[in-house]
Amino acid sequence: MAEGRCYSPLPIAAVEQLPVPDALPVRFADIEAAATRIAGHAVRTPLLESPQLNALTGGRILIKPECLQRTGSFKFRGAWNRISQIDPATTPGGVVAYSSGNHAQGVAAAAAMRGLKALIVMPADTPAIKQANTRGYGAEVVTYDRASQSREEIAGRIARERGAIIVPPFDDPHIIAGQGTVGLELAEDAARLGASLDAVLVPCSGGGLVGGIATAVKSRMPKASIHSVEPAGFDDLARSLAAGKRLANDRTTGSICDALLSPTPGEITFAINSKLLAPGLAVSDGEAGAAMAYAFDRLKLVAEPGGAVALAAILSGKVDVRGRTVAVIISGGNVDRALYARILIENPSLP
Amino acid sequence: MAEGRCYSPLPIAAVEQLPVPDALPVRFADIEAAATRIAGHAVRTPLLESPQLNALTGGRILIKPECLQRTGSFKFRGAWNRISQIDPATTPGGVVAYSSGNHAQGVAAAAAMRGLKALIVMPADTPAIKQANTRGYGAEVVTYDRASQSREEIAGRIARERGAIIVPPFDDPHIIAGQGTVGLELAEDAARLGASLDAVLVPCSGGGLVGGIATAVKSRMPKASIHSVEPAGFDDLARSLAAGKRLANDRTTGSICDALLSPTPGEITFAINSKLLAPGLAVSDGEAGAAMAYAFDRLKLVAEPGGAVALAAILSGKVDVRGRTVAVIISGGNVDRALYARILIENPSLP
Repeated sequence: MAEGRCYSPLPIAAVEQLPVPDALPVRFADIEAAATRIAGHAVRTPLLESPQLNALTGGRILIKPECLQRTGSFKFRGAWNRISQIDPATTPGGVVAYSSGNHAQGVAAAAAMRGLKALIVMPADTPAIKQANTRGYGAEVVTYDRASQSREEIAGRIARERGAIIVPPFDDPHIIAGQGTVGLELAEDAARLGASLDAVLVPCSGGGLVGGIATAVKSRMPKASIHSVEPAGFDDLARSLAAGKRLANDRTTGSICDALLSPTPGEITFAINSKLLAPGLAVSDGEAGAAMAYAFDRLKLVAEPGGAVALAAILSGKVDVRGRTVAVIISGGNVDRALYARILIENPSLP
Repeated sequence: MAEGRCYSPLPIAAVEQLPVPDALPVRFADIEAAATRIAGHAVRTPLLESPQLNALTGGRILIKPECLQRTGSFKFRGAWNRISQIDPATTPGGVVAYSSGNHAQGVAAAAAMRGLKALIVMPADTPAIKQANTRGYGAEVVTYDRASQSREEIAGRIARERGAIIVPPFDDPHIIAGQGTVGLELAEDAARLGASLDAVLVPCSGGGLVGGIATAVKSRMPKASIHSVEPAGFDDLARSLAAGKRLANDRTTGSICDALLSPTPGEITFAINSKLLAPGLAVSDGEAGAAMAYAFDRLKLVAEPGGAVALAAILSGKVDVRGRTVAVIISGGNVDRALYARILIENPSLP
C-alpha cells in the first residue's frame, strides 16, 4: 500500500443498535448449538494481530485465519454442523453436495468422520488441490461445466437416485449456523482482548459465512457493522443489498477468486443479510493477489484468492479503518502451488 | 510422507525427572520476568493443531508458529527483553548487532520501538527480504562476507567507535530468557489443552531458542524431552551434545537454511543445552523444503527453510511420534518470494 495514497473509502457505518430479530431463519441460539457440535471436531482458530498491519493501516486489525481450519477453509464448520446430525444407519446413500471446492472438502471430511458416503459435484475448472483433497477425504467427485450446466440439477438427480441427503453450500439454516461459529469465536476472543469491534469484513459468495457471522457478532456486539467483500464483477450481494432485492451476476467465470463466484445471493442468506449487513464491498483480482502476497510477506499466512478479499479491502483503502477496531476474516487457503508461486512472483515486493 | 515408509527414528527419550538446576545461567524466574517485559509488545503466538497432521503422523502434534511473531520470527522476543532494559538517554550510540537476518529484524524493530539507533552487521548473502525489512525498521545495515570475515570483530569495532551496546544473537542470558518465553507460552497453552508434552522439537542455530525453551518447558513439564533440529552438515550442537564438548561445523555456507548456520554452540547456550537437551536431530535441505511445501498445503503457514526443520524432522520420520504429544516450533517465516515460489514448484504435490 503506497504512502500518501488517496483515500476515498467507505466510512464505517454509524452505530446501529439493531438487535438481531428472533424471526430470522437463524437465531443466536442456533449458532451456540452449532458451536457445541463442532467443539473438538473443528479447529478453534486463533484471533491474530500484526503490529505491522496496525501501523500500516492506522487501525487495530484483528485477523481470524480460517485458512487454519480443518480442510483449509471455514466450510468444515457448516458441513459438520449439518452432517453430524445425520444418522449413517438410516442414510446409506450418504450425502451429496455441489461446491466450487471448499464446501466439497468440508463435506467430504465431515462425511468421512461421520461414516457417511459422499459424492460431490464440482466445476471442471476447480483448482486441482481442491479436487485432489476432496477425493483424498474419500469422496466421489463428478465434474460439470460451470458455464452451461446446473449443479443443483445434477446434484438433485444423483441424490434422488441414491437416496442421499443434499448438503447445500450456503442456503440452509444448519450450514449458516455452523459458519456463524466463526463470528461467535471472533466476538468472544475480541472481548477477551478488550476490543470492541467497529466492523467485520467477510469474504462472500452465497452469503452463508457473512450471514452467520452477522447473526453472531451483532448479537454480542450490536454496534459492529458487518461488510461482505466480493470480487469486482461478482458483487451480487453488494448490489442486491443496495437494490433491496436479489440480483444476479452477469458472469459465472472470470475471476481468480474461484471460491466466490456464486451467481446470486441465497434466499435464506439474503433474508438474513438484507436485515443485518452494512453496504458490501468489492475488490479486483489484482487487489486480491496483492493481499495474498502481503499475507505471505507480513502475516505468514497462506490465503487463497477468495480468502484474501477482506484483507484486500483494507489494504486497498476500501474502508477507512483509522482509529477503529476491524476484524478481517481470511476464509480459506486452498490455492494451487503453481498459482500461488505465480502471484508471489508477479506482485511487486514491498519497499 | 509416503505410507509404509521404513521407520528408523530416534526414540523419544525416557522420562527424565531432571529439575532445571538453579545454577544454570538462565533461571525459570528470568523467563517469567521476560514474559512480563514482552507482554503487549510481542505477539502471543497461538498453539495450533492440525487434525490432518495428527492423522498422518499418528501423534498429537502441537505447532507453535513463531512465524506469526512480530518481525516474522521468534527473535523479537529476546531482542525486546534485552533492549527494553536499555535507557536511550544514557545510550546515545544505540545498539549494534550481528545477525544472519532474523535477529537483525528483531533488534531493529525493538530498537525503533525503544527510540534507540540500531546498526546491524549482516552477511552479504542474507535473503533480500531480511535486509530490506531490517532497513525498513530504521536500522543501518553493514554487510560482510560470511566465509572470510568475523562479524563479531566488525560489530565490536563499530560498537567501540559509537559507544553502542552490542545485542548478541544468542549467547546472552537476557536473549535466552526472552526466547524462553516461547517455551513458557507453549507449556501454559499445552496444559490448557490438557496435553502433557512428551517432546519438543526446536530449530537450532546458536542454541538460544532451544536453551530458553528447554529451561521453561522442563521447569513446567520435566518429563518432556527437548530436541534441537539443525541442517545436515551444520549440526554442531547435535555433535557437541554427543561429544560433551563444543564442536564446530566444517562449513559456514551451503544450506538453504540461512538462519541456522551458526558455526558453533555458544558458551552460555551450551552450558544450558548440555544439561537439559535430549540428542539433537538434523534434516537435509530437501526435507526442509518438503516441510515448507507441506506447511503451505496443509497448515497454511509460511515457514522459511530454517523455520521448517523441526516440522521436517517429524515429516521425514526422524522421531517416532506415534501415540505421543509432540510440540514443533516453526521458528520463522522470512523467506524471499522467489525462493518460496521455487520450493513450491520443485516439491512434488501431495497425492
